[in-house]
Amino acid sequence: MALIVQKYGGTSVANPERIKNVARRVVATRRAGNQVVVVVSAPGDTTDELIALAKQITDRPSPREMDMLLATGEQMSIALLAMAIQDLNEPVISLTGPQVGIVTDSVHTKAKILSVSCERLEKELQKGNIVIVAGFQGMTCEHEITTLGRGGSDTTAVALAAALKADVCQIYTDVDGVYTADPRVVPGARKLASISYDEMLELASLGAQVLQPRSVEFAKLHGVVLEVRSSFNNNEGTLVKEVTEMEKAMVVSGVAGDKNVARLAVFGVPDRPGIAKTLFSALARESINVDMIVQSYMRDGINDIAFTIGRDDLDKAVRVCEQVKEEIGASGMAYDDRVAKVSIVGAGMITNPGVAAEMFACLAEQGINIHMISTSEIKISCIIDEEHLTRAMKALHERFIGPAES
Amino acid sequence: MALIVQKYGGTSVANPERIKNVARRVVATRRAGNQVVVVVSAPGDTTDELIALAKQITDRPSPREMDMLLATGEQMSIALLAMAIQDLNEPVISLTGPQVGIVTDSVHTKAKILSVSCERLEKELQKGNIVIVAGFQGMTCEHEITTLGRGGSDTTAVALAAALKADVCQIYTDVDGVYTADPRVVPGARKLASISYDEMLELASLGAQVLQPRSVEFAKLHGVVLEVRSSFNNNEGTLVKEVTEMEKAMVVSGVAGDKNVARLAVFGVPDRPGIAKTLFSALARESINVDMIVQSYMRDGINDIAFTIGRDDLDKAVRVCEQVKEEIGASGMAYDDRVAKVSIVGAGMITNPGVAAEMFACLAEQGINIHMISTSEIKISCIIDEEHLTRAMKALHERFIGPAES
Repeated sequence: MALIVQKYGGTSVANPERIKNVARRVVATRRAGNQVVVVVSAPGDTTDELIALAKQITDRPSPREMDMLLATGEQMSIALLAMAIQDLNEPVISLTGPQVGIVTDSVHTKAKILSVSCERLEKELQKGNIVIVAGFQGMTCEHEITTLGRGGSDTTAVALAAALKADVCQIYTDVDGVYTADPRVVPGARKLASISYDEMLELASLGAQVLQPRSVEFAKLHGVVLEVRSSFNNNEGTLVKEVTEMEKAMVVSGVAGDKNVARLAVFGVPDRPGIAKTLFSALARESINVDMIVQSYMRDGINDIAFTIGRDDLDKAVRVCEQVKEEIGASGMAYDDRVAKVSIVGAGMITNPGVAAEMFACLAEQGINIHMISTSEIKISCIIDEEHLTRAMKALHERFIGPAES
Repeated sequence: MALIVQKYGGTSVANPERIKNVARRVVATRRAGNQVVVVVSAPGDTTDELIALAKQITDRPSPREMDMLLATGEQMSIALLAMAIQDLNEPVISLTGPQVGIVTDSVHTKAKILSVSCERLEKELQKGNIVIVAGFQGMTCEHEITTLGRGGSDTTAVALAAALKADVCQIYTDVDGVYTADPRVVPGARKLASISYDEMLELASLGAQVLQPRSVEFAKLHGVVLEVRSSFNNNEGTLVKEVTEMEKAMVVSGVAGDKNVARLAVFGVPDRPGIAKTLFSALARESINVDMIVQSYMRDGINDIAFTIGRDDLDKAVRVCEQVKEEIGASGMAYDDRVAKVSIVGAGMITNPGVAAEMFACLAEQGINIHMISTSEIKISCIIDEEHLTRAMKALHERFIGPAES
């Protein structure tokens, strides 16, 4: 008897019909002789609707009350899914994050999981119950309700799979696997049979939007095998696991685009030790995730520091920069949120020099200007104007992976 | 410094504008130098919408999962109200029923409060916070989420007022007090300045819909002074307290109508001890509240037993009756849900004989047939056909309280 953790995203539980569809999948998995733990997100656009509702009340809702509000979305989903499974005559129980004992830190709206208690989960599984768990949420040691931030349900699923030592963690979504690029943007994109954690991690954090980066990190750390599948068909999905055998030959396994990017720059910073620390510590204290950092080559003892963040954090980051500007002796600042990040990812890059040069050439041929560059062992990212993103992705996919299917 | 518990119903928090309005009232009470604990219901029709959603999933949702679903409504309200109060720069914190430590029995969807912990509430009040508490919900000793049934937020408010020894428990609703009859039905109805717990209790359980009966019972038991007010204006409300001085002269202080009534009858029951016990224990086990019970005069050693319940429980009650029919040797059964209950209430009735006869005469003059009669020291109720309810209420109000205003 295998123990399977399944996670269904918001689009999979967007309405009663889809919830019933998920219930049938869950029950089929149970009746095939498996123990099943199911993690669900809030239905459809519920989270966005709740945020819009809060914005009608106040411009700056407190994160603590935001979590109180947002946690209701997943609680609706688990109750409705449990009802649908009961209707199919399988024993089932729904549990909120706090009821499971998912303990997080107290960074509201972006909390990190500190520990997962298996006691209640195992008790319910032993009773023969299918267990439905609310994704995206947990509680602090002081019983305050927290949420894990966008895509947090993936992290919940992986954390439960790790804690319960599940055989596999299936992530059901609206796409049926991991593609070499977003098929909606690049028509020639192909589905991968498997991919390594590192490649998936780069793709995930580069905006492939299939899996939440933190969940992949968590899976890698605990050796949880992930399977990305569609909840709307029975197609084979993509396995995310330690060693990839299938796609090794490919230098570049994927092209990713991300529009959730804003760039900021602080100009004329004197070249003194501790400047970067002051700036980025101040950003970290506000829980702003900084992605790329570029410090220009010093000229006359003065530097420019540029960096990118998620667009949601732009207002906060601008405020932070204005506060520390004088402290670090900067002469000015600028920001721009009409940019995007295009990236190529592949474990084969390490042994293939010249991939970066080929990427820059490809973008140049398209007449696309590069604002910032960042590289790691298995990926190269460029910040470009948002308007060129689709064209850049198509050109890079054709260059590195193959022509669009006719 | 007074400690005031305020309760706002669903219509008072139905949309962002109304939530802001409630926030202004709460903040005004705080700035007048009071400590304030606020209990809120789910916004507008949220509870009904959630029930409709559940019904789309399954005909018979389990009560446990129903509570999981319904508890989200109040959680939305408390978060949004807390945000609106923060926007007015007053310190505030929202707490769910479980977070407060409202412990209930485990009768899901109709749970009863067993105890209220003051620890967290007092800690937050001492910090200077306005405390917003989710009405209608609690948890069992096993941390299962429960709800208190329709109107449960009133009970939450009274329970908190009792536990905290609050100076007053203000119930804000869409009417500005307790009237001699529903003003929408009887145009001549008048607002009462004050009313005794017992009279309010009879009016409440008779469908006056201003206060939940259990909350009035609780208030009487713990000596909590209630004040019924409108959240839409600043009119004086109605006080509900131990001794009524104002309205003592009136024989009848109110006329009430209730359409949430179904009647059942079990025919041809042999006259043996324990029959009633068997029938009503079986109904109690299913948590069905029985209101009126009439056992007809025995004829040839055989009885008919008739009783009334809320319409929501009709299906369940019919099943119970069918199950126990053979056990008690009944020859048949019947039920009808197109009936209503009309009642007159007044502490002055005790010392005024002939009130019942006058009520029956009044209904007879209107050509209204009486199906069942039930009396207590301070009220008389009659079951009549639903279609006659409005006419019956108007006639009784004119007879006992006064003519409609022109």
